[in-house]
Amino acid sequence: MAEKVLAGIDLGGTKLLAVLVDGEGRVLASDEQPTYADQGADRVIGRMVELVNGLLGERYELTGVGVATAGTLNPNGGLIEIATNLGWKDVPLGLELERRLGVPVTVENDANAAAYGEWKAGAGVGTQDCVFITVSTGIGGGIVSGGRLVRGKTASAGELGHITIDWNGPKCPCGNVGCLELYASGTAIGRAAAAAAEADPIRGAKLLELAGGVKMTSRHASEAAKAGDPLAAEVLREAGRALGAGLVSMVHMANPELIILGGGASHIGEPLLGPMRDMLDERVIGSMGRGVRIVPPTLGTEAGAIGAALMAGA
Amino acid sequence: MAEKVLAGIDLGGTKLLAVLVDGEGRVLASDEQPTYADQGADRVIGRMVELVNGLLGERYELTGVGVATAGTLNPNGGLIEIATNLGWKDVPLGLELERRLGVPVTVENDANAAAYGEWKAGAGVGTQDCVFITVSTGIGGGIVSGGRLVRGKTASAGELGHITIDWNGPKCPCGNVGCLELYASGTAIGRAAAAAAEADPIRGAKLLELAGGVKMTSRHASEAAKAGDPLAAEVLREAGRALGAGLVSMVHMANPELIILGGGASHIGEPLLGPMRDMLDERVIGSMGRGVRIVPPTLGTEAGAIGAALMAGA
Repeated sequence: MAEKVLAGIDLGGTKLLAVLVDGEGRVLASDEQPTYADQGADRVIGRMVELVNGLLGERYELTGVGVATAGTLNPNGGLIEIATNLGWKDVPLGLELERRLGVPVTVENDANAAAYGEWKAGAGVGTQDCVFITVSTGIGGGIVSGGRLVRGKTASAGELGHITIDWNGPKCPCGNVGCLELYASGTAIGRAAAAAAEADPIRGAKLLELAGGVKMTSRHASEAAKAGDPLAAEVLREAGRALGAGLVSMVHMANPELIILGGGASHIGEPLLGPMRDMLDERVIGSMGRGVRIVPPTLGTEAGAIGAALMAGA
Repeated sequence: MAEKVLAGIDLGGTKLLAVLVDGEGRVLASDEQPTYADQGADRVIGRMVELVNGLLGERYELTGVGVATAGTLNPNGGLIEIATNLGWKDVPLGLELERRLGVPVTVENDANAAAYGEWKAGAGVGTQDCVFITVSTGIGGGIVSGGRLVRGKTASAGELGHITIDWNGPKCPCGNVGCLELYASGTAIGRAAAAAAEADPIRGAKLLELAGGVKMTSRHASEAAKAGDPLAAEVLREAGRALGAGLVSMVHMANPELIILGGGASHIGEPLLGPMRDMLDERVIGSMGRGVRIVPPTLGTEAGAIGAALMAGA
């Protein structure tokens, strides 16, 4: 008798990543393919079906599918209203996959799926209340409360990069003002480092040298700080403090026991995370901050696919 | 056969309010008494028991009790760790009430209980994702996501007055900086009106006249604005904009379909709520803000007791 499994697919602008998992989120098989989004939704959906069927073979019996994706969703029917990274508009992805695969399909926001995956099968195992935040080009995340994802009306809760930390601050492309992402994302760190180095080229010499005339990134800031450069350390400290200020709001809203902090920029390590932790310790309401642990994620790039699969089985 | 009911008690610093409700939160009976907190926890708990037994009479059979209270809770065993309004420290309220009443007891944060009550039996009926916010002396609230209260590790999630809107702003007594409550609570409005009138006594004449030499409050600002005073209108506009900025963060985090906005200061009406709505409309991520309704609560002062009772039955 074939073993029952759930499939999860991370539908990205450049890559399709599929996994098969058991009910605890253990990965039994995985595969990936380019998305070729420009070939149109129907072809992409066809490739998603092939990818899942290829993994199933004779050995596994599919019981549900979860898809993790960016873009604006209508969770009823798994409709993707707009996905700019795919060039999609009003694609009934969930219904279409259900028709072709013959099992229930759920379509989820990718950051929320990753949050759920990390909570249920990764760094959050054993907890009930957990905030997942990923700091890379942008900032995203998700909230698990009482063992359930805070999903929201349009499945897009947990837009943690777009909580306001300065209501009189600069305009964010999202339409809001003073979003956390403007101060603490990898993009923001690169931009702040470039501005700091430009404003003071003598103190900024190390940063300018590392960037070598091309666009300065958070990686240059991280390298410079590791080499002892004070200006880079200041830039990262400010970003870390902003991140900590954002975490304070998240803790006051969700009262978690665990914060799972991941994403490329989190690898900057102590120059960013030290000031972040200090800020949280200084400012959080004592009874809510007490004992909150901050840990890295454990599932890596498969978190979204694993989480979506588990949500299909929940 | 006696009708099965749940009891809810709002345990305040000055007043005990008890209700009996059915499973839908319909109030079957209610009563209140002074708390007399200075008589000590044992006497207060005794009065809570009498209050509930008095309501039950012969007619009703008690199946569970919920208590709504301020203060720091340990939800396991319903321990009140610290309640400054009662002068309590480490009072095992839940266990003690269970012993005396012989039914399961849950102890909940009062704002969260009110949020749950309004969601299940008040303005939120029929929704699944709802933010409740109360603006009076301070700002509090609660979040219902997917039909469940976002309760948090120590039952104190939804501290909506203490999300940061300016991370470089003034210090809040809670320990954080730039909390929403500092800009948009009734207290903040009174303080801002006093400061504005003091800074410009000519433009502030109406406010100063209304306050009549005693402490200026949000009520004076509201009255002055209703009488057409431009300075009062400016103060309320700024507070309303701050409130709107806070709502943006809440919507981005919880993705609700409904915001229930109550509390004394909400009665100021359009001079406060107009700028609040404008701010939300201007800044919220379009797909998340679309269709979000803002409505007043319907349960009045019984919301906390009703909600706590319903949580005991959940």
